[in-house]
Amino acid sequence: MIKTEHLLQTLQTEFEQRAYGQHPSELYEPIRYIMALSGKRFRPLLTLLSASIYSDDWQKAIKPAMAVEVFHNFTLMHDDIMDKAPLRRGKQTVHEKWNANTAILSGDVMLIKAYDLLLDIQKDSLRTVIARFNQTAAEVCEGQQLDMNFETRWNVTEEEYLEMIRLKTSVLLGFALELGGIISGADQESTQLLYAAGENMGIGFQLKDDLLDVYGDPEKFGKQVGGDIISNKKTFLLIEALTQAEGEVKSELEKWISSTNFDPEEKVKAVREIYEKLNIRTFTQQKINAYFEIGINSLEKLQVSDERKKPLLQFVRQLVEREK
Amino acid sequence: MIKTEHLLQTLQTEFEQRAYGQHPSELYEPIRYIMALSGKRFRPLLTLLSASIYSDDWQKAIKPAMAVEVFHNFTLMHDDIMDKAPLRRGKQTVHEKWNANTAILSGDVMLIKAYDLLLDIQKDSLRTVIARFNQTAAEVCEGQQLDMNFETRWNVTEEEYLEMIRLKTSVLLGFALELGGIISGADQESTQLLYAAGENMGIGFQLKDDLLDVYGDPEKFGKQVGGDIISNKKTFLLIEALTQAEGEVKSELEKWISSTNFDPEEKVKAVREIYEKLNIRTFTQQKINAYFEIGINSLEKLQVSDERKKPLLQFVRQLVEREK
Repeated sequence: MIKTEHLLQTLQTEFEQRAYGQHPSELYEPIRYIMALSGKRFRPLLTLLSASIYSDDWQKAIKPAMAVEVFHNFTLMHDDIMDKAPLRRGKQTVHEKWNANTAILSGDVMLIKAYDLLLDIQKDSLRTVIARFNQTAAEVCEGQQLDMNFETRWNVTEEEYLEMIRLKTSVLLGFALELGGIISGADQESTQLLYAAGENMGIGFQLKDDLLDVYGDPEKFGKQVGGDIISNKKTFLLIEALTQAEGEVKSELEKWISSTNFDPEEKVKAVREIYEKLNIRTFTQQKINAYFEIGINSLEKLQVSDERKKPLLQFVRQLVEREK
Repeated sequence: MIKTEHLLQTLQTEFEQRAYGQHPSELYEPIRYIMALSGKRFRPLLTLLSASIYSDDWQKAIKPAMAVEVFHNFTLMHDDIMDKAPLRRGKQTVHEKWNANTAILSGDVMLIKAYDLLLDIQKDSLRTVIARFNQTAAEVCEGQQLDMNFETRWNVTEEEYLEMIRLKTSVLLGFALELGGIISGADQESTQLLYAAGENMGIGFQLKDDLLDVYGDPEKFGKQVGGDIISNKKTFLLIEALTQAEGEVKSELEKWISSTNFDPEEKVKAVREIYEKLNIRTFTQQKINAYFEIGINSLEKLQVSDERKKPLLQFVRQLVEREK
């Protein structure tokens, strides 16, 4: 049986060896910088795990899998400019370390380099893969635009929020799994199941991110717990609370949101209490479970032996249980 | 014989009908806006003219030709942010009309949409075309980075400048011509000649831009003649002048460059006189002629009847003689 750790190690080695380009160094150095920040590489790993279900020759999926990771990091580089984020994985963002122009242009080249990596696919699948990648990539941008639109709106519905995170986060996980299937010759029904698995689990992951930001164990979470509450970030929890709260509870929530001069700890505590009153934590956890269940069910429906599915299912279950 | 005017009209109609995407409108509206600014469409026209040399079915090159134009406009949208340009073709730039974030994200989607248009190519050529496009696109970004690097350097050599404009401007014209050849089944020797034609003419065009900015007929040029001199833009003429000037002439040139308080008309007149003393105008014109000659020679070497080459050659000669 394939060892997930071995796939990950192979990916890490490939990423370490890749230069993307040389001259001018001002263009390519930021690409090597962001790609070296220790991401979990879990998107390309999904592609390799998915490819290894249908073929022992998972190596042929390495470069396309890397394309997914390079694309993901391209979106991070550009999103960080738009969000004015100073840090990424604990290090300076590219536009902070260099400047916004560098982050724009290096990001553009990364997107092109993702397409370059995607070319390492047999002729019969090339058009399909690039067409699916194009659609996914455009959807990720649509998700980012919706996310920016939501910043200035206070009437975002649950449905709108779920659609935004589906586009911004989940479709790429769906594509990562689908891609492995296409490369290793899975039939269309299977690649659609793989896509659905990634898409649903992706929504679950994002909702779990929202939940952990409020209820995570501070020692395991890695970021400041409560950060989303302090900054009024429109997470699933806040959107639900705004929708469900009435009367006095609603007034109190709105008071905390509009307050500009507050004690952060006090605000986190107060908003958490409002969430408890409205049962938001349980409601969110149920949503997360439901999405993960649809995702795992999709994988279980794949018409291959349990033995072949096992590494991917194990990896996915581990992601589901993460606490950071 | 194919009518260039007919090809152009076909392109215009196709561009008018293309929506690129719908939702969210904040993402796609800026794409329709920049694509509707009246560009000359001469890059996609080169692709169609090139395709029609080798096949009467030039229609099959329409979407790939549009990819070249969409890519070009993507670079304009992002370059305008980097250059803080307020106007493009006499209208507000996207980052001015909306904001920088919109221009970043809509630009990203345009690059993806260019790849979408490029997919309309037969299976046997798809990998070649995308690989060549990837290389070209990365080179255009490298050219933009070099151009930005040059802004803070006063020792840019002629060789460096020519390499920068080759990357930033010419390789895309080379690709536009090569692409038409590949689509209509030209052999590799021919597609290489087509590329060389575009590459050399592209350098000639850019040098001509530099020359017209100083010596153009104000009534025909459309922009303020002398603008490059006023802003100390590092054009071919200024780089040559800085390299060739000695003694008193050099001191005077440096005085005008470092002056922050001057009468624009007086500066244009004075720098023009320095250019005259150094014979820069003639020197630049000779360079332009040399590049155009190599470009046209490449087209004349194509192993097809004069009749089939005629529309492309006529169009190119007309571009060579332009005065705006």
